[in-house]
Formats: sequence, structure tokens, C-alpha cells
Amino acid sequence: MKFIDLRSDTVTQPTQEMREAMYKAEVGDDVYGDDPTIRELEEYAAHLVGKEASLFVPSGTFGNQLALFTHCRHGDEVILGDDCHIVAHEVGASSVIAGVQLRTLQSRKGALDPDEVRSKIRGEDIHFPRTGLICLENAHSNGRVIPLENMEKIYGIAREHGIPVHLDGARLFNAATSLGIDAAEIAKYCASVMFCLSKGLCAPVGSMLAGSSSFIEKARKGRKLMGGGMRQAGFLAAAGLVALKKMRLRLKEDHDNAALLGRELAKIPGIKVFTDDIQINMVYFDMRDTGDDGSKLVKELLKEGIKINGPENGIMRFVTNYWVTKDDIMHVVDVIKNVLKAA
Amino acid sequence: MKFIDLRSDTVTQPTQEMREAMYKAEVGDDVYGDDPTIRELEEYAAHLVGKEASLFVPSGTFGNQLALFTHCRHGDEVILGDDCHIVAHEVGASSVIAGVQLRTLQSRKGALDPDEVRSKIRGEDIHFPRTGLICLENAHSNGRVIPLENMEKIYGIAREHGIPVHLDGARLFNAATSLGIDAAEIAKYCASVMFCLSKGLCAPVGSMLAGSSSFIEKARKGRKLMGGGMRQAGFLAAAGLVALKKMRLRLKEDHDNAALLGRELAKIPGIKVFTDDIQINMVYFDMRDTGDDGSKLVKELLKEGIKINGPENGIMRFVTNYWVTKDDIMHVVDVIKNVLKAA
Amino acid sequence: MKFIDLRSDTVTQPTQEMREAMYKAEVGDDVYGDDPTIRELEEYAAHLVGKEASLFVPSGTFGNQLALFTHCRHGDEVILGDDCHIVAHEVGASSVIAGVQLRTLQSRKGALDPDEVRSKIRGEDIHFPRTGLICLENAHSNGRVIPLENMEKIYGIAREHGIPVHLDGARLFNAATSLGIDAAEIAKYCASVMFCLSKGLCAPVGSMLAGSSSFIEKARKGRKLMGGGMRQAGFLAAAGLVALKKMRLRLKEDHDNAALLGRELAKIPGIKVFTDDIQINMVYFDMRDTGDDGSKLVKELLKEGIKINGPENGIMRFVTNYWVTKDDIMHVVDVIKNVLKAA
Amino acid sequence: MKFIDLRSDTVTQPTQEMREAMYKAEVGDDVYGDDPTIRELEEYAAHLVGKEASLFVPSGTFGNQLALFTHCRHGDEVILGDDCHIVAHEVGASSVIAGVQLRTLQSRKGALDPDEVRSKIRGEDIHFPRTGLICLENAHSNGRVIPLENMEKIYGIAREHGIPVHLDGARLFNAATSLGIDAAEIAKYCASVMFCLSKGLCAPVGSMLAGSSSFIEKARKGRKLMGGGMRQAGFLAAAGLVALKKMRLRLKEDHDNAALLGRELAKIPGIKVFTDDIQINMVYFDMRDTGDDGSKLVKELLKEGIKINGPENGIMRFVTNYWVTKDDIMHVVDVIKNVLKAA
Repeated sequence: MKFIDLRSDTVTQPTQEMREAMYKAEVGDDVYGDDPTIRELEEYAAHLVGKEASLFVPSGTFGNQLALFTHCRHGDEVILGDDCHIVAHEVGASSVIAGVQLRTLQSRKGALDPDEVRSKIRGEDIHFPRTGLICLENAHSNGRVIPLENMEKIYGIAREHGIPVHLDGARLFNAATSLGIDAAEIAKYCASVMFCLSKGLCAPVGSMLAGSSSFIEKARKGRKLMGGGMRQAGFLAAAGLVALKKMRLRLKEDHDNAALLGRELAKIPGIKVFTDDIQINMVYFDMRDTGDDGSKLVKELLKEGIKINGPENGIMRFVTNYWVTKDDIMHVVDVIKNVLKAA
Repeated sequence: MKFIDLRSDTVTQPTQEMREAMYKAEVGDDVYGDDPTIRELEEYAAHLVGKEASLFVPSGTFGNQLALFTHCRHGDEVILGDDCHIVAHEVGASSVIAGVQLRTLQSRKGALDPDEVRSKIRGEDIHFPRTGLICLENAHSNGRVIPLENMEKIYGIAREHGIPVHLDGARLFNAATSLGIDAAEIAKYCASVMFCLSKGLCAPVGSMLAGSSSFIEKARKGRKLMGGGMRQAGFLAAAGLVALKKMRLRLKEDHDNAALLGRELAKIPGIKVFTDDIQINMVYFDMRDTGDDGSKLVKELLKEGIKINGPENGIMRFVTNYWVTKDDIMHVVDVIKNVLKAA
Repeated sequence: MKFIDLRSDTVTQPTQEMREAMYKAEVGDDVYGDDPTIRELEEYAAHLVGKEASLFVPSGTFGNQLALFTHCRHGDEVILGDDCHIVAHEVGASSVIAGVQLRTLQSRKGALDPDEVRSKIRGEDIHFPRTGLICLENAHSNGRVIPLENMEKIYGIAREHGIPVHLDGARLFNAATSLGIDAAEIAKYCASVMFCLSKGLCAPVGSMLAGSSSFIEKARKGRKLMGGGMRQAGFLAAAGLVALKKMRLRLKEDHDNAALLGRELAKIPGIKVFTDDIQINMVYFDMRDTGDDGSKLVKELLKEGIKINGPENGIMRFVTNYWVTKDDIMHVVDVIKNVLKAA
Repeated sequence: MKFIDLRSDTVTQPTQEMREAMYKAEVGDDVYGDDPTIRELEEYAAHLVGKEASLFVPSGTFGNQLALFTHCRHGDEVILGDDCHIVAHEVGASSVIAGVQLRTLQSRKGALDPDEVRSKIRGEDIHFPRTGLICLENAHSNGRVIPLENMEKIYGIAREHGIPVHLDGARLFNAATSLGIDAAEIAKYCASVMFCLSKGLCAPVGSMLAGSSSFIEKARKGRKLMGGGMRQAGFLAAAGLVALKKMRLRLKEDHDNAALLGRELAKIPGIKVFTDDIQINMVYFDMRDTGDDGSKLVKELLKEGIKINGPENGIMRFVTNYWVTKDDIMHVVDVIKNVLKAA
């Protein structure tokens, strides 16, 4: 059975071109530096975001936590938004691996208030930890794109204080697509950036961590410590190269489909779509006025071959991706209408 | 030269009675459980806050961090206010010793919103750390006393979810004095409580961590690991017993003096006293309208034998204590008036 | 240029069958539990070593460190040999991720003295950490196979004290092949076992951690924390299944080739082969009596298309693998003879 | 009842002179740097061991762990003997606070083999942690004094590699007394040294950590993080000054008494005294040939007002101290003879 899967863009199957690239990939032992496809990917990826070097890692969480571990000393404090992925969805890893104290600020739809950032930077005092890092996230996992001006201001404050900025760019190219600029334009406001080859870009496994050459050299050893030193990883790199070269260029389709889905859902009585928040490939909505918060809908749609996640704090999220066409969108909307009518 | 010291209540000298109690103290090797004065103090202190057992530790920070280490597993998440002492003034220790992730909530003058606490408790999900602890602070180091109703609500939510509550009660007896109740009435809304023998109670060194017998037994080993296993600590306990038996009962004087100081400062043009926040022995005020944010005042008062701290984020704090009399208060106010007049 | 690569079995290229299996692999989002090939691999691998469940991880180091993290509490002590991989070649990760104290015993060619193990197990005392785990390694990374009787004795001691045993079985199937028994016969003397799909088995990336269902469930969350939650990892699993089903059965060839290589090298004047230590696919030898400790040989062989590593503490190691034939072995020996003659 | 206590020198009561010094001590808030007696102690102690600065800490374990935390980065490796106090009796703290990996070498009566130290220092390799510190212990907690030549050799090797040496000198002055030299002569072979004011020196609580000014400045902040920032600690410092100025000079009496005790015990049939190991105030012996390993003796002696510890691994240890006179020694020997005769 062919499913329409709106749960997340992490569910994306690789493309046929990726399968072929993997089949033919030239590989070697990357711990010895012998894998040519990994080397090609690491060079290409660094170039794409305007950094000197990059490193292939098994996941976005791995890349973010490796960045914390590489930038910070044990006991440092990290300033970041209270709803960002590192805080909310990485299993508390920051306290285990990097051993840092999180100093969370109220997220304003993913953005941080530069003045608040400044006020939380620690001075010299025997009672204070060192502020070791500021983390931003763009596109945010809440579906929003953070304005460049906001990043620039925070980056400026960080530089004044000699504090590095790490960017969680799991969906960096969605942000770049939405802003109509190069990813490097975003990444210039950070010392290091992590971005995923999977998700909307459809590669099966892997993310990149990019930064200065010396940062990546240090991170390479940290990757080994964390168990991310992989051998013939060139297979994954082969798919990753397709992701960065081809799939990156078509993300606008997903965004357009999300916008379409948002408009159509908004027409259904009882569904309130957060229309202003549709900036990439995510649609958030509240359907509690239909008498179902979405929990029942999950089961009904599954019967029709449509996979969705249930509500979190009452809010539903649909995510579009390469394998969901415009026709699929219209079909999903029809099925929802029927399900609600029948209820 | 005799100074009037309003920097903090941590500066308090021990009383003559304490010196005498120390001189005569019966002591033994407490690691062997041989120190009778420590045993007496630990039993008395536990009784005072309605807990089964307690443990003598070298400082308030030590007691709080030992509580985190004892309650939590490495990688747990701890919910607490963003301006509490554990976050703000303990050098990031939570990430080093207990190895926990802090989940900070906006402090409302020291209190937490029970609904927000509830919303941050983690459910079961592969992306989530376990919520291991909720920390409260009363009296808060910002000088406020948290209402019992607020503590009770949060304690109820914690119990529903099987999560322990730790209370940072560095100034627990100030809170009890302000509320006009026994400290045990406050401490019943927590599984463990730390309170200091120094500060307003004037003992030279030491704090207590109290809780169930099994909690304290586990904490005793954690104390050894953290290097807090002391030998003939009965000297400090002897002073601590005076602190708890005598000095605890006179804290109202300090509060009255703080209120007096607040009223008198408020009469000085250009000084805005946060009168509603004077609930224990602390007076916060903003004197920037005088043309000095307090930085100059520090030097002027020192010439007159008065020690104060400079402003933090523009706000000044004076703290009263046993060694500051009503006459001292009036003298300080006069000196300030003269200094401002001369400026 | 086709190289003969004797540096390690980690350099093994995947087989054509693996490439085809990867090309056709059915995959899904494994974080959602949707990847059928991963599920097949995890079931098959668990079965193979006689455990209830297993988990795919990105590397052997990842699997070992995840085992430490899952078995132990922060601050526990782990008993293991002083030359084992966890101590010697995992970048000190045990102190970073699991946060455990290593208690190393003198390795006797990889085996531990059961009496010494027993003497290091901690009793109850306020000065002692808890002994949380005993680690064994078989086949050892020094090329030796540990006798089953030794493992059984240590396992018995561990069980008496309620302490789990973890087996680093990076080359578990080499050990089983050498002993002529099923891997499950070895793995029955441990609570958890890690084994690699790469190395002699030729899969490009990945290792398995196996144990009880409850252990693996806990480890699955730990894997996410450590950044090892991968999405469409079924590609790697497809190659891994070939590794376990096919390549596992041919390891004896590598062992025979190592024995042949040992015999032939031993005939060369000035080369002392540690013949008794050739138990799997590794040949250790000392060639310092030839006037070269091996450092020059590295360069000379590279010119001839033969890759080897230089000496460690004066000792050379050659490792055979699937891609090194009997003819290659004889060719390498000839080249070495010529190089030494020319010197 | 007056006991003769041979369990350890940690049980020592403070002297009358110490009680008087404490009674009269001038104190202040040491976190503000206001305690004159602490300042005097820190200066005097630093001078005594030939270092630029020193820091008062609550215990020997605290001082050692603070040294690890201050010298090392998270994940570093530390080389030390497998029976030293840091490994054996500090509750695994090294893995919790400093987060370092211990690389233990076989202790040769407390000394390390310099060649083995050299062989364990890590080079540059992606698989290796950094060697961050070498720890020595003198006098060793096993009662032995390490020869200066041994320390000098290891210190030389450490310096070649740019690795600091920390000395656990809990009984530094016993070692100096035994060697007939200044403590500074020993301490010159280390970057930092911890020594105790309690134990044979009779102060009730506290140890010193000494080193360069910059090291102590960094350690001061680490002390705060670990909860060792104490307020009016001058009371303890007052006793500590007596310990260092007076009690330090009389340790030879304890050593002579230990030698006497050893000679007398050796005359009792069935008791084997490790005579060569009596170098400070500790007597180790094996009495299993008397039919009692010492477990029964503990109870019999307690009835006679003599406190001893039971055997560890079959070996008994008696420790002399200021409060045990020559007459007490002879009395203890007589009682033991009677107990064994009656058995």
C-alpha cells in the first residue's frame, strides 16, 4: 500500500537517483581518511554554507551535541531558546556529553530578543559559569524562519563578548529557500552550523557540521569519542551529495504545497490554521472546535492510507515533503472533510 | 574600626555564645559517626523542619548541589525558576556534578506558575529526558517570600507525577518568620530542604540538608564523593545549634529593621524603594534619579565605615542582620542624605 | 591501482552482493520503528548471539559506550583489562558519556585473572563507588581469543555479586570461528554483547548491541541521546544482513591466511613472529633485527601497492581480510624479502 | 571513658591550644576575601611547601578532586597508581566531578615505575584521550614513603611532555619527617600539592591545596562550584595554623611509637608485622596464624577501651597519633597478649 505520510519530513524515502549513486559509490575507510565520497561531500557541504570545512555525522542531534562538546568546556553555560530542538527534543544530551548548563530564553516564535541575550551573558564573578556558546535555530523546528536581522544582531552581541554562535540548521535550506537567499548568507552569522541531508532533502541518513578548519579538526576527534567514526560511510555520502546538489533546489515545491494545504484546511469549519506560521513545509492548526482534537483523525486517516501524528498540547502539525504531491494534498483535504462530516 | 555591613547577611560574625559553645564542643570523627555534637545538630535540625533526618554540609551551594545529585540520575531534567540561586549563582555546578539539564521557567518574583510547571513535565517519548526534580526557593534570594498556596499547588502537581520537590531554603527561617508559621509548615511541601546556619543565623560555616532517612543515607555517601566528609566538624555544629535554637527566634528584628530602612530611604528624593518587596531582611531600591546608580555611594559610605555592594542591573540591595541595629540604620540613612546633598 | 591492504580489517570494501542488497533495500524511518530491514537485522542479530533483542549502532565504539551508559549509573566503577579497546582506543569516552571510573586489571594476553576480578569488586563502604559492570573482550583487539573457561569463571563471579558483564565482541565471530563454536556459546557469559558488521564481515558501517529486551529498550533511548538515532538506516542493515548471513561463515579463510602469512614471515631472517598469538586474522611480529623496525617498510611496500601500518612500541601488525587472497599473501612475503635484501 | 584509638589518625581530637586559637580567632566572610585568619593560613601554608599560593578546602578528598578538576579538561586521562587514595577511597569522584579517565599503573609499595609512566603517556592519535595529569601520593596511604628519586624521575618525564603532576600529600609532613627534609623539598616535584591539617596534625577540619597563583585562582572558582566556599572559616584556619606551626614538628614521636608498636607486636607468636613498611605512623600486620584474623580482636579490645579497625583483605592496620602515648602502646600490647592467651 502506498501511504501519504504527513507525519514529518524525516520519513522521506531516498530517490531513485540516490539509490543509484549509493550503488556505484566509491568508498574507503573514513577513519583513515580514505573515503573519497565522504571527502567530496565534506568539501561540497562546507563550500555551500561558506565555511572552511565540514564533517559528516550520523544525525542532527549528533551534530548539535558535537558542536556543544567542541565549542564548550565542561560547566560552561549555553544561551538558547526554550523551545529549540536542543532543549526540547535531544533527550537532555547537553547535560551528559558536553556537560553544560542551559540558560533558556523565551522563544518569540523561534527568535530570541537580542537585549535579553545580552543581559544573560555572564560577567566575571566567582558565582558565575562562563558563557560558552549561544545557539540559534533556523528554520526553527516550529516551522518559522528567523529573520536575518535578528540573527545578525545576536551574532554582533556574541562577537563583542567573544562568544561563538552555533546554528542548528536542521532545515537550513528550507530557511534559505523561504528567504530567497543562499544558505551561506544565513550561516555567516554563526561560527558553526549543523544541517541535515535527510528530512526534506531525502537522503537516508546523515547531517553535516561545518565551521572553521580548526573547529572541524577538533570536532573530528569528538566525533570519534561519541562513537560517530564510521568506516565506509561513502554510501551515505553519495546520497547526501544528491540531496545537496539536486533536492535542495526543489524545496519551494514543499513550501507551496504546505501553503496550499493550509489554505484548504482553513476552509473547513472548526479548523483554525496558523496561517502566518506557514513559512516552510509545516502547517500547524487547531481543530478542537470540530469536536476532535485530532486523536480520532489519526485513526480515520490511517484507514485511508494517510499517516499523521496526533496533537501536541492540542495543536496538530502536517509536514509536506518530496513524496507528497499537490494531488495528494487535495485528496487529504477531501478525506478530512468526509471524516468530519461523518462524525 | 567597627563597620556597619549591609552587603549581605553572609558577613555576619558569630556571637559570643557561639564562640563559647565552640570552645567547649565535644567532637569526634564524623566520618566514623563519632561526633556527638554533629549528631545532636542533625537530629535537632531534622526535627525543626519536620523531616526524618538531616546532614551537615559546608555550604548552601553544597547542599543544593548534593540534593540534585542525590535525587536525580545523570541526564535528568530539573524544573526551576530562571532567577533562582541554583541557576544564577552556583557557577553552573548542576551540569558538572549532578549532570542534569535545567529547564528554567520565568520567575514571578520568585514564584513559579503551577500551570507552566505542569506543562513542562515530560511525558514518555524517545526524544525526552526524564523530569527528575522540581526546585523551589523560599525565601527567595531576591528577598521575596513565596506564598504557601503556590508551593502547595506545585507540590501537588509534582506528587501526581511522582516527581520529588527540593526546596532551597537558604533563608527558610526568614520565610517562616515572615509568614508567622513554623518552618516545618513550609517544608512539608518538599521532599528535601536545604537551609543555612550562617547568613541571618550568624553561624560561621555550614548548612543542613534534610529529608527522609533513606534520602539522607544516600546523600551522606554523595557528600563524601563531593569532598564534604569532614572530621571533627562538631565545632561548627556547636555554633549551628546556637544558630537554630537562639538566633532563629530573633529574625523579626532584622525584618523590622529592613522595613524601617526601606521607609527612611523612600523619603530621600531620587530613591525609589521597592517597598512591596521588603518581606525579609532585604531592601531593594533604584537610586539612579539621584544621578548616581550607587557606584559612587559605595566609595563614599566606605569612608564612613559603612560597607555596601554596588548596583546589579541598576538596582541596589541592602541587607540587615544581627549586627546592624536600629540606630545603625538611622545613621546610614543620615550619611546617605549627606552624601547626596554634597554631590 | 588495486592495493593489498593489511592495515586492518576495518578497511574492507563491501561485496557486490552487499551493494545489490543496499540498492534494493526496503527502508523507513527507524526512529518511528518503520524500517523493515533494520527490524529484520535486529531480530536476526539477536537470535545469532542468543539474546532477546538487539540494536543497530553506527560503530563499535558507539556500541561499547552505549553499553556502559545503559548498564551503569554516573560514578559507578567498571572492571576491565588495561589493554582493552574501551580503555586504549575509545578517546576516554567512558569518562565523558557514561561518567564511570575505570578500574583496570593487568591483561594476560587479553584475559583477566578471575581472582583479581573478585578482589576488585567493591563492598559496601562510604569510601567506595559501586562496581557497576565488568567488561570482557573476545576476540581481543590484540588478536587473541579468550578461553571460554576464563569467561565462564568471571561471569560466575559477576553473577554472585549481581554485577552485569558486557562483552566487547567487535570480532566476536572471529573468536567463535577460532573456537569452532557458535557465537551464542560465547555470548552466554555476558548480559550484553557488542559486535561489528564491518571489519572482517565487510559491511560498510555499523555494529550491533544485543541483550535482554529491557536492556535494549533502555539502550534505544540512550542511542537517541548519543545522536545515533538514524532515519532510513535500512540501507546499512541490508549490507549487515549479508555480513551476518554470508560473510560470517568464511572467516576461517582469513585465519588460515594469517597463519600462512605468519609461517612465511617467520622464515625471513631477522623477523620474529609471535606465532602462538595468531588465533584469528592478525599477525604480530618484531622485525627490529632486520635493522628496520617497520617504519621504512611502510614506505617501500606502499610503492608496491601494499598498505601496512607502522610499528606500535616496536611491534608490527598485519591483518588479513576477505580482499586479501592466498596469492596476495605470498606476493607480500616476496616483496618483503626483496625489500630487506635490497637494504 | 578515655579510649586509646588506633583506628586512624583522622580521629585525633584538637589540642587545647587549638581550642583557644579558635575561640579568639578573627574571622570574616571568606567568599568576599574578608577572613584574615584564612588569609594568614593560606599564605603560611603556601610558603611551607614552596608554592606561590594555597587554598583552604574542607577535606583531603575535596582538595584532590579539585586538583583534578582544575588541571584537567573533561575527558582527559590521568595516570596514577592502582592503590592510591584517589582511586581506592574517593567514591569514584574523578568520574563525576572532573570527568576524567583513570589510567592506573601497578603500585610498587606506592611508587610508580617511571618507564611505565612514560609508556602510558598518550601521543597524538584520533583514538587517544589527552594525558592531562599524573598523580603521586607521598606519604602513601599504605604507610610507605616514596623515595625522592622516584618522584624526581617521574616529574622529569612529566615535564618533558608538558604534563602537570599533582601530589596527594594528605600526610606530606609525615613523609618529610621520615625523610628528614623540608616538605618543600618533596613538593618541588609537583605543580600542585594537597595536604591535610587534620590527621596527624590534629586540626579538626580542613586541607590545603597549593600551587602557582594562577592555578589557585582557577581552583578558587572550582571550589565555589563544588560547594566549598565557606564563610567565616577562620575558626578552622586558626586551628590549622597551630597544626602547621606546632604539631607538624612533633610527628617523629608518632613514628617512633609506631616503630615501638611494631617491634612489640612482632614478639607475639602468630603475629607477622610488615616491619619494613613502618615508615610513618602506621603498622601493618597479619595475625591470622593466631587463629583470629583480627575480627574478634576488635570486640575484645573495645571492652578494654581500645578502638581498632578490623582487617582488610586479612591485614590489620594500627595508626599512632598525638593522643596515643608510649605507655598506651605498651598497654595495648599487653592487652593483646592477654586476649590471645585467653582464646
